[in-house]
Amino acid sequence: MADVQAYIDGELSRFRAELFEFLRIPSVSARGEHAPDVRAAATWVADRLRDAGLEASVMETPGHPVVLGEWREAGPEAPTLLIYGHYDVQPPEPLEEWHSPAFEPTVRDGNLFARGASDDKGQLFLHIKALEAQLRGAGRLPVNVVVLAEGEEEIGSPSLVPFVQAHKDRLACDAVVISDSSMFAQRLPSLLFSLRGLAYFEIHVQGPGGDLHSGTYGGAVVNPGNVLANIVASLKDPDGRISIPGFYDDVLEWDRGTRDALQALPFDVEGFKREVGAPGLNGEEGFSLLERIWIRPTCDVNGLLCGYVGEGAKTVLPARAMAKVSFRLVPNQRPERVKELLETHVSRVAPPEVKVRIRELHGGRPWKAELTGPFFEAARRALAEAFGQPPVLTGEGGSIPIVVDFQEILEAPVLLMGFAPPGANMHAPNEWIPLENFEKGIRAVSRFYAELGG
Amino acid sequence: MADVQAYIDGELSRFRAELFEFLRIPSVSARGEHAPDVRAAATWVADRLRDAGLEASVMETPGHPVVLGEWREAGPEAPTLLIYGHYDVQPPEPLEEWHSPAFEPTVRDGNLFARGASDDKGQLFLHIKALEAQLRGAGRLPVNVVVLAEGEEEIGSPSLVPFVQAHKDRLACDAVVISDSSMFAQRLPSLLFSLRGLAYFEIHVQGPGGDLHSGTYGGAVVNPGNVLANIVASLKDPDGRISIPGFYDDVLEWDRGTRDALQALPFDVEGFKREVGAPGLNGEEGFSLLERIWIRPTCDVNGLLCGYVGEGAKTVLPARAMAKVSFRLVPNQRPERVKELLETHVSRVAPPEVKVRIRELHGGRPWKAELTGPFFEAARRALAEAFGQPPVLTGEGGSIPIVVDFQEILEAPVLLMGFAPPGANMHAPNEWIPLENFEKGIRAVSRFYAELGG
Repeated sequence: MADVQAYIDGELSRFRAELFEFLRIPSVSARGEHAPDVRAAATWVADRLRDAGLEASVMETPGHPVVLGEWREAGPEAPTLLIYGHYDVQPPEPLEEWHSPAFEPTVRDGNLFARGASDDKGQLFLHIKALEAQLRGAGRLPVNVVVLAEGEEEIGSPSLVPFVQAHKDRLACDAVVISDSSMFAQRLPSLLFSLRGLAYFEIHVQGPGGDLHSGTYGGAVVNPGNVLANIVASLKDPDGRISIPGFYDDVLEWDRGTRDALQALPFDVEGFKREVGAPGLNGEEGFSLLERIWIRPTCDVNGLLCGYVGEGAKTVLPARAMAKVSFRLVPNQRPERVKELLETHVSRVAPPEVKVRIRELHGGRPWKAELTGPFFEAARRALAEAFGQPPVLTGEGGSIPIVVDFQEILEAPVLLMGFAPPGANMHAPNEWIPLENFEKGIRAVSRFYAELGG
Repeated sequence: MADVQAYIDGELSRFRAELFEFLRIPSVSARGEHAPDVRAAATWVADRLRDAGLEASVMETPGHPVVLGEWREAGPEAPTLLIYGHYDVQPPEPLEEWHSPAFEPTVRDGNLFARGASDDKGQLFLHIKALEAQLRGAGRLPVNVVVLAEGEEEIGSPSLVPFVQAHKDRLACDAVVISDSSMFAQRLPSLLFSLRGLAYFEIHVQGPGGDLHSGTYGGAVVNPGNVLANIVASLKDPDGRISIPGFYDDVLEWDRGTRDALQALPFDVEGFKREVGAPGLNGEEGFSLLERIWIRPTCDVNGLLCGYVGEGAKTVLPARAMAKVSFRLVPNQRPERVKELLETHVSRVAPPEVKVRIRELHGGRPWKAELTGPFFEAARRALAEAFGQPPVLTGEGGSIPIVVDFQEILEAPVLLMGFAPPGANMHAPNEWIPLENFEKGIRAVSRFYAELGG
């Protein structure tokens, strides 16, 4: 391990120079005109994997290519680790809000500013450099390694699941490691313990055959706008609990230890309030703010549309009304089950004088880390050593569909260790990463390999 | 009276020919290019008033002119009647749906088809011809008469209230007669006994300062879309009653006689159902269909808008939500009082984590006829004689703001006797009136004058 850390000490300034080179490639996957840049970034990543000592290939998909790096010399008895990241980036606009050009990496006060610095080029690259440090510094790895880097993450990864399914055997592994998230606080290493899932619906209520005059017909005709309001109102109690019968049946009640750990996190409630900018915050009774956004399910209106919404007073009794309503799910809820429960509930609430149709627009399962086992323990120790304090466990209120996909297709646990700082502006101007995080990330990941070697 | 009916017999074919001439003038008030036609129609009406024996003038307003006709030879002791109508018409589009041209009056099966045949040229003109029949046939009228014909009814009468206020003394009268509505059934003469009023609001709910990610924030932030649904749902009970405390305090409970009369009307429920085209009808418990649309108040959503309403699943926690909600009011409710009650109610329902603002967009009072007195009795007898059966009393679920304005400014009761057939296509292609209604209307109105003479 001393060899490896010494190698990092010696090569760190070159690592930084290479990262700058990587960040200068405008690999914006959403823009057709950047397709050559996306491909150039793929080739660049493959070259760096080869420099590190892996075999690498750029593999075609219907969209942007996937880069695959492999080192399998630990032997068939040793475990295999899959490292996932992405080399594409968000569009940089609005350009005028950047303090330095998006694709000209610039260091200010020890922080590196560039599109992709945190999401995800910086974090993908620190894994490649940790592999290089191990293979060049110690001459070997205690585990076999597959690196999978895609170029379509910022456009919803349309080619990735088919790719993983098609190469299931080649990608077979004992654990997946992803670094594409943030730390809870700067210098506070973090491991993700859960992600929420999603069940997203459109509810359509059809009343009359066409819009009617509210004077001539109002009072005798059931108004689909009123019915829709009743349906939406019936989904949630005033105390913030979802009132669909059976909704909580599959909701995991976390152990006291996990809840106490959340309680102990240095969370800036006032900062959160300022970000939100509402007259106040609220949520399900009996749960803390972080529990409400990480480990409890939600029911949120995402959209409402009915009748006349322009200027002034149109006296219309509308023919139809529509709501977009979504539920954030927590382990062990399943979107399919939520759909069934919602349909049963709505059919009880809606009167027979309207037709109600429920369309499922998106379903994604929640995820829960395995908080035991050799990979988790190795990560915990490596982060503690590199950062000088043990990692905290954090949740994430949103969904990362690829995490569940990896777990289901490859049947391997996923480990999410993020090195981005809080507020990294991942999809905004002035994206950044502290150079300290880049360096400590390389050290932490290389220590992680050493820990796996026992 | 025999002279008058004989005059009508003798002149009826000329009356028809003149009506055709009137209907050929495309006096579409909504279209700038038709302004000369609107003025030509005003001049034409003034000429016919003079033919009938009245003094007439075309008076300027900031918009289209008002035509004023006067006959005051009954003397200062005799009562004065104000007859209101309008000489402008709705636009004829869509033209391709007319079976004969909109401004080329065409008779098919005894029915006259043309824009304005019922609304309101045909009904205004039959009053002018009844006056002519009286003045030329009998030589005099038992009452003084003022005819007020406006050219802006189809664009909301912007100049009329200021005109009536400015000429309040000249327009002073003992009763106002308006023929701009329909009969309950063909050959069944009808007098309107009530109109509903309107209180129309926008409810705005503001939560976060801007749209938020529903994954990152959902569960801890109060969603303005859910709050809006709760507010709207709280306005009405499942049994169709409005649940705003105090809302029914001023609602007139009609006497048993009126309710029994409604029950006896030959109402085509199945036809109404087909028009509506919903899976079913419903409304306030304990009231019949006609009662629900004529004499009971309503609460209808006219519009809803919140968050993302395009294609697909946007996981947004919206910053704001808006509903347009209106109440049809019945005697003796007042829109100002309804606003106060709504504000108090909403402030109790909405949680403190959002800001709610209520904007009043429109308020109009309900109206109730005086079902006694010499004018009402004379109208009842005249209609019975002309149509061979006594008139029925009908309500109207919509509002006719000018009725309340006349009553309030001129402090005179208003009598609404309509001669349009049901389904006259007043604002649609193929507007029509049975020639029989035109003739019987002239006879009924001239008898009405005779009845007023005792």
